[in-house]
Amino acid sequence: MDSLASGVRAGGVREIARAISAIENSPIGAPDLLDALGAPTTPAHVIGVTGAPGVGKSTMTSALVRAYRMRGSKVAVIAVDPSSPFSGGALLGDRIRMQEHSGDAGVYIRSMASRGHLGGLAAAIGPVLRVCEVAGFDVVILETVGVGQSEVEVAAAADTTLVLVAPGMGDGIQAAKAGILEIGDIFIVNKADRDGAATTARELRHMIALGERLPQEWEPPVHLTVASTGEGVDEVVAATDRHRGWLVETGNLTRRRELRAREEILDTASALTRARLLEDRPAVDAWAVEVAAGRRTAFEAARDLVAD
Amino acid sequence: MDSLASGVRAGGVREIARAISAIENSPIGAPDLLDALGAPTTPAHVIGVTGAPGVGKSTMTSALVRAYRMRGSKVAVIAVDPSSPFSGGALLGDRIRMQEHSGDAGVYIRSMASRGHLGGLAAAIGPVLRVCEVAGFDVVILETVGVGQSEVEVAAAADTTLVLVAPGMGDGIQAAKAGILEIGDIFIVNKADRDGAATTARELRHMIALGERLPQEWEPPVHLTVASTGEGVDEVVAATDRHRGWLVETGNLTRRRELRAREEILDTASALTRARLLEDRPAVDAWAVEVAAGRRTAFEAARDLVAD
Repeated sequence: MDSLASGVRAGGVREIARAISAIENSPIGAPDLLDALGAPTTPAHVIGVTGAPGVGKSTMTSALVRAYRMRGSKVAVIAVDPSSPFSGGALLGDRIRMQEHSGDAGVYIRSMASRGHLGGLAAAIGPVLRVCEVAGFDVVILETVGVGQSEVEVAAAADTTLVLVAPGMGDGIQAAKAGILEIGDIFIVNKADRDGAATTARELRHMIALGERLPQEWEPPVHLTVASTGEGVDEVVAATDRHRGWLVETGNLTRRRELRAREEILDTASALTRARLLEDRPAVDAWAVEVAAGRRTAFEAARDLVAD
Repeated sequence: MDSLASGVRAGGVREIARAISAIENSPIGAPDLLDALGAPTTPAHVIGVTGAPGVGKSTMTSALVRAYRMRGSKVAVIAVDPSSPFSGGALLGDRIRMQEHSGDAGVYIRSMASRGHLGGLAAAIGPVLRVCEVAGFDVVILETVGVGQSEVEVAAAADTTLVLVAPGMGDGIQAAKAGILEIGDIFIVNKADRDGAATTARELRHMIALGERLPQEWEPPVHLTVASTGEGVDEVVAATDRHRGWLVETGNLTRRRELRAREEILDTASALTRARLLEDRPAVDAWAVEVAAGRRTAFEAARDLVAD
């Protein structure tokens, strides 16, 4: 355990991979390992990359990695797929697309399916972020794979959330309907060499302007990019830096991280409760028979099992 | 409370709606109401309708409602959208599509977003199924809206899961990749008047045949339908009856319902833990500060807060 922890602290790729696997495989997030890891010296900038399938999230992630590497930052990419019932396999495609960075020791890329984790995404991501920070990564990119609630949950885990839309796909009304206007710190109209990019950007800016905002609040910028050629990516990186600066100056970085920690604590407490109940399987099973037969309710069972 | 419960038992539409709203709005599933409701006289046949967007789930659900009504069964439809961060609005379209049944007192249709529910889908669906059963519905159709993990979770809540695919979309490899081969009790190639329907059905049958199965296990049939015209829907209803008969004969109905009850109990216990922790918000917030700063881990916080 201690050699694993010191390996992670030294930034060893194999140790990082083993540590994350240990977290994934533990229903309560490998607490002993986290204890051994200790606190990170500096927090990483956690950047969420989200958007509908087909908008180019992987290509953008790869372009961001390139840009951050250019200035010497160490970058970890965690591809999160909470919608996948199966770990690993489905994300192979993304790993292959990221192959250009595979020889670079300053880049770590990992897929993560969170379904096995009892506590939900927040409890699963928190310990993984900790590993990345302890291992010395300056930037951690959380890329959502798949669709659905991952977007909102990944945004909750990130300091800065990039929302990608494609021309025509991401018009203002669609974005508002999908709830992404609320979660984005920076909006990106990717594939901007296609028809309709300027219109989509205009609609997004219009929708953002409609949102009520206090004078010192962050107003999400809208950038146009062609991630496949790298066009506009430097401007996005500059915007993430500006957002990070704003977070620090206003105290919002601390506030966001405390909110995130609270979610992680609550999720971990839920997972711990579940794990403890499953230690006395016969008691749970006996209750399940009563509940399935309609004689008692699940709440009565839960109240009895979670002792006062 | 008691008048609400007796209204539900009498099958009153307004009381059913109020009861389900009470469950949705309670982080722990409105336990007092469930107590007052008591046990259902007969369990409903819970049928899950799932599949990718665009395969015609709503149209199939509507056709199934028509077919079950033809033989006098009372039918409740619960459209579940766990991926939506917002309750209600997004599902309006489905309600409109189901309008043909709106004057029929033997049909109840309801959308349900489960994100607000702390315990997850199992804890949210269990009490709603209980309301439908107590209200005397013979069949409850759980239709997945949106995409993602809803499919697997809805299948876990259903007695019989129908998986819809469309010609060309649902070829065997895609189905296997998406994990739907494991969850389907009955496969339906809908929009079977389109090119490629026979090929898709053949591929599905081939993939199903490849799965290892004990002699007395259920082998999922593959049906072709055109839900919009009703073609093939009676055969699907007959297949759901056969599956239900198989479940009863083999004892699998009880087994599935006990597994479901166990999940519901564990989810409810998690929700209860969370709700109790939030009663002492300052304690959680104090821990969150320590965890956000990296001085302590979320697990230490959870272990301390969930008293031994």
